[in-house]
Amino acid sequence: MGTDSKLPEHVQRTLDAFFDTQRARLADMGDDVLPLIAKSQEFLSGGKRLRALFAHAGYDCTVRAIDPGASSNTEQIVSIGAALEMFHAAALVHDDIIDESATRRGNPSVHAAFAAVHRQQNWRNRSEQFGLSAAVLIGDLMQSWADELFGAAMSSLPVSAATAAREYFNTMRVEVGAGQYLDVLEEQLGSLGEETLQLERSTRVLIYKSAKYSVESPLLIGAAAGGASRAQLNALSEFGLPIGIAFQLRDDLLGVFGDAEVTGKPSGDDLRSGKRTVLIALARKRLSSSARSVFDEVLGDPRLTDSQVLMLQNTIRESGAAAEVEEMITHNRDRAIEAVSSAGFDADSVESLVALANRATKRLS
Amino acid sequence: MGTDSKLPEHVQRTLDAFFDTQRARLADMGDDVLPLIAKSQEFLSGGKRLRALFAHAGYDCTVRAIDPGASSNTEQIVSIGAALEMFHAAALVHDDIIDESATRRGNPSVHAAFAAVHRQQNWRNRSEQFGLSAAVLIGDLMQSWADELFGAAMSSLPVSAATAAREYFNTMRVEVGAGQYLDVLEEQLGSLGEETLQLERSTRVLIYKSAKYSVESPLLIGAAAGGASRAQLNALSEFGLPIGIAFQLRDDLLGVFGDAEVTGKPSGDDLRSGKRTVLIALARKRLSSSARSVFDEVLGDPRLTDSQVLMLQNTIRESGAAAEVEEMITHNRDRAIEAVSSAGFDADSVESLVALANRATKRLS
Repeated sequence: MGTDSKLPEHVQRTLDAFFDTQRARLADMGDDVLPLIAKSQEFLSGGKRLRALFAHAGYDCTVRAIDPGASSNTEQIVSIGAALEMFHAAALVHDDIIDESATRRGNPSVHAAFAAVHRQQNWRNRSEQFGLSAAVLIGDLMQSWADELFGAAMSSLPVSAATAAREYFNTMRVEVGAGQYLDVLEEQLGSLGEETLQLERSTRVLIYKSAKYSVESPLLIGAAAGGASRAQLNALSEFGLPIGIAFQLRDDLLGVFGDAEVTGKPSGDDLRSGKRTVLIALARKRLSSSARSVFDEVLGDPRLTDSQVLMLQNTIRESGAAAEVEEMITHNRDRAIEAVSSAGFDADSVESLVALANRATKRLS
Repeated sequence: MGTDSKLPEHVQRTLDAFFDTQRARLADMGDDVLPLIAKSQEFLSGGKRLRALFAHAGYDCTVRAIDPGASSNTEQIVSIGAALEMFHAAALVHDDIIDESATRRGNPSVHAAFAAVHRQQNWRNRSEQFGLSAAVLIGDLMQSWADELFGAAMSSLPVSAATAAREYFNTMRVEVGAGQYLDVLEEQLGSLGEETLQLERSTRVLIYKSAKYSVESPLLIGAAAGGASRAQLNALSEFGLPIGIAFQLRDDLLGVFGDAEVTGKPSGDDLRSGKRTVLIALARKRLSSSARSVFDEVLGDPRLTDSQVLMLQNTIRESGAAAEVEEMITHNRDRAIEAVSSAGFDADSVESLVALANRATKRLS
């Protein structure tokens, strides 16, 4: 991954220093507010740093096109990466509230952790409502902190670059929020839609909630911050969107077939939660109408036994949908790499982008 | 109120135009996302616009100190006002989740409104959880939109003014989130604290959740955007903080003694919810320990009858706490007006500030 390899460390250091300034800022409010910062800092430790890496890659290939020896890991792009990771943390904290998830990466989710403190302290009122309240507020704080980190990075950029980067950041935030709403809405609908329509709806969620948000937007934000031209931004879109799509399709496969020990989530998690992914939509298109009825009946039942999960996995595999999704991943990755290879970026930058593309789409967790 | 009088209209127009741009931005996502914007726009219609007015007043008195004929209502300060109102809306939407409030200003709260749609459409899953999810996401969107409006205003200001205004905006966002957490925490504690300690704790919430957030910070943000000097900022702090304190003390009184027909909330609302306000803390300090025990017993019972509410109102009045709070309001307002009168602002500006101060602290709702 060349110059990217130290980025996660730099991002971590920036985040930790940032939390120190927040502690100082809130010092007058007393010790009771410290858990807000401590829990946020804990939540922001580790992770793939995928969005920071894509932002960095977008920035790097842009500035190197102007000056091949341009120094990487400048303060601004690290701060942008930290802002994106902070924003993502805010989204995850609120996502766990929406999904009522008790865990996140093997640890208690934020609302579950605060509910546990409440129970332990024997406070009055309902522990769950306290956990929910604390998590709503922590997500809000993280979102403000993301803005602050982003603003700090923008303030030292040329005005035109900052304006362009900010526009992508604004668009990303709104698209992911609206995309998440579509995802929630999808789960409320009584039955799965007509197969082709359902595939369209699932694809729309995949694009806005994940592909643009996880890959394309971070790339474009980084590139815009580096002063990218319109042609460079277009090339990075033609790379980023398909990689984002392939990234989420990989997630769809892992959600159904992933190894629990590697993913950290129970195997078949998406089957028990009934997530209406593109993979599921494709499987339904391929099943006979009678097989589809049975499939729809069982999908989304949280009490599915392991052998029922196995049966659903086999149904999806035998329908040919899993292989089709693998082909879509390969096709999207190839298309992306082609787009970025002919865009006039230097060889090192292209190599970094390809390495990131592989990492995002060939992963096991 | 002089030049302020048209500000609410200008802010409303800016917000409506902003929502139009958001509709255009999300057009590709289809009609399903439109309720997010429609509900936000509805929520942002009307209201006192107190924060926008204070920001405007801070800006005006600063720029007029340099150029007495400076035009008011410039685009930037209207956009800052719109950003503050949008941020406040985000906070209220999430606050209603935290407080489990079914109504806001006589209408269903956002989570209640989306839960009602869910019930009406006969969708699957729990209506309440859908309402909660939609409201979490709408609050998040509003927070992003607030940042976007604020950023737009900053981009046309001199860098030094923008940097200073942004710092106040960042501090405000974090302080109010942390202050809200302290308020929630307060309600979880088994019993009210020792009287003097309880007064300190209630005062801390009053300062951070309300006084700074509603008055001092908006004033300072506006003034910094206008290029205020350190001395001007200090003078506005010495005005804004006491007015903010008096503003919230007025709220405390209205929450116990307010006329339901004017406030839009049931009379004695704070008594049934057991809100640990400064007014309540002062009353407890003044009661004999036996009277305090009875008081503590009844306070916060949602099933209080009207005659029990009346009894508690009388207890608070007879303790002398209500009169003490009235005196504190007067004292803080006097102190504030004195600070701002001797700060070298022009007469029109001082008049506007005093008018706003009276409006914030003498209101009936």
